[in-house]
Amino acid sequence: MATTTTYTVTGMTCGHCVSSVKEEVGEVAGVTGVEVDLATGLLTVRSDDPVESGHIVAAVKAAGYDVAGQS
Amino acid sequence: MATTTTYTVTGMTCGHCVSSVKEEVGEVAGVTGVEVDLATGLLTVRSDDPVESGHIVAAVKAAGYDVAGQS
Repeated sequence: MATTTTYTVTGMTCGHCVSSVKEEVGEVAGVTGVEVDLATGLLTVRSDDPVESGHIVAAVKAAGYDVAGQS
Repeated sequence: MATTTTYTVTGMTCGHCVSSVKEEVGEVAGVTGVEVDLATGLLTVRSDDPVESGHIVAAVKAAGYDVAGQS
């Protein structure tokens, strides 16, 4: 079943930051789509099956940012 | 004669921005060295012979930023 999960990412300041987060999160196994809103820090992750949030958080950290929350 | 010129760049918000400016300015013919300080926006350009400031400004704009001044 298609799954959409949203996270709040902190520390992004520009479009380059958005691109970095998109790239890293997009490489997580199972992720089929990624959207990032710079103004709000909202990260939307789509997948066919649920993806462990720890993997998403790790990808965001790998890009150099932090996750403040998940909803 | 070695020349060092400094410019003030506005709009850079993170290390990615710094990298973009360094890359574009570094590609200007004659430029031998580029330093960028994110906090102050200071762009330091080194060259063996003077480089037209218009070429530097154009490179900064190509990277997506503006030059507020030259010193």
